[in-house]
Amino acid sequence: MSSERKKINRNSIIRLTQYKNMLHRLKALGFERIFSDNLAEAVGVTASQVRRDLGFFQLTGNKRGGYDIDTLIARLRHLLGKHTIQKVVVIGIGNVGRALMNHREFEKESIRIVAGFDADKAKWDSRARIPILSLEKLKTYLNQHDIRIAVVCVPEAAAQEVVDRMHDTPVKGILNFAPVRLKPYPGCVIRNVNIGLELETVIYFVNAEEKAAPACEPLI
Amino acid sequence: MSSERKKINRNSIIRLTQYKNMLHRLKALGFERIFSDNLAEAVGVTASQVRRDLGFFQLTGNKRGGYDIDTLIARLRHLLGKHTIQKVVVIGIGNVGRALMNHREFEKESIRIVAGFDADKAKWDSRARIPILSLEKLKTYLNQHDIRIAVVCVPEAAAQEVVDRMHDTPVKGILNFAPVRLKPYPGCVIRNVNIGLELETVIYFVNAEEKAAPACEPLI
Repeated sequence: MSSERKKINRNSIIRLTQYKNMLHRLKALGFERIFSDNLAEAVGVTASQVRRDLGFFQLTGNKRGGYDIDTLIARLRHLLGKHTIQKVVVIGIGNVGRALMNHREFEKESIRIVAGFDADKAKWDSRARIPILSLEKLKTYLNQHDIRIAVVCVPEAAAQEVVDRMHDTPVKGILNFAPVRLKPYPGCVIRNVNIGLELETVIYFVNAEEKAAPACEPLI
Repeated sequence: MSSERKKINRNSIIRLTQYKNMLHRLKALGFERIFSDNLAEAVGVTASQVRRDLGFFQLTGNKRGGYDIDTLIARLRHLLGKHTIQKVVVIGIGNVGRALMNHREFEKESIRIVAGFDADKAKWDSRARIPILSLEKLKTYLNQHDIRIAVVCVPEAAAQEVVDRMHDTPVKGILNFAPVRLKPYPGCVIRNVNIGLELETVIYFVNAEEKAAPACEPLI
């Protein structure tokens, strides 16, 4: 890679992940080759978008035969960091936290939830398949196990403090479900997902259609 | 509103909702007026973006006094459909579905989860604060109670069928948590939120930084 690094945006990464997931399904159905039009239709984008996305990473097909699925999966997995196990901790074991701990699909994607953390003693269980530990042990655990990814599902009031606690640990990526925009420390990226906001957005679009208020672009 | 409707995109709506939520907090702290710079900082956008967003809806402040918070909240709430109660059903009462049913913040936003639906008999409870009913009763319930918004949290394999079932009901907006892109029927908008994809995206960014693969724009 040259010293002048190319910039790629978040939506491209989401699409690459969607392509990879769709390729896995097609492979399971017995497919061996695929065209950009097929992928485009399955993911809901244009064929030229697919070619641009894959071309950006030097992934090219040919007009006659399309892309070889196995090769494409292997390249995408490498690109998306699937060739090694990604260890992830979940902080805050409420309903959303538990949903993540029980999400069996992650294993297929080389994602392993290795531990949960909660302030509530009643939830601690160090012998569970995925142990749930005291929040006091978080920092030590992250350092000892070299964890780089954390999911934050604690209540709003506790969220920033939990992030700040991870400052001197290997954690470099955080997915946040607390309904508040968190500030990352240097060298850390945070992706905020606010389930309430998503619902409010859908409600707006339905009302806008009915009131003939400013109309909306299609939701994705 | 003129017959030529202005187009607004989804990100603007998300920002308007974030402004509204922030204004509520500032009001609770005793603030009466606010400047675009304050809102910009709190939400993490530029001040000119704030002015563009609000100006699009004829919401204007003035350089000396800024915006009156009460007026702004009232206008935003009207715009976002908060002046009437929005009734919502949740379909599929797993961990995510339960998290939504227990989300107390919704009431403040004039969102009321009125019922849950599940195929599993063991989860039915018609006497609960929010009743959980058989999936067989879904269509009748939606029609009788004029429900326009539904949240889908069923497993992937059942998700499209659940959407198709709502075709001849008043439901016009769907928030989907099943990890599959669902096809809406005419007159219906669907917003897909894939928690697994969000986690994969964070993992990509962390790996990209370490491998000096194509770098990323900041996550939002």
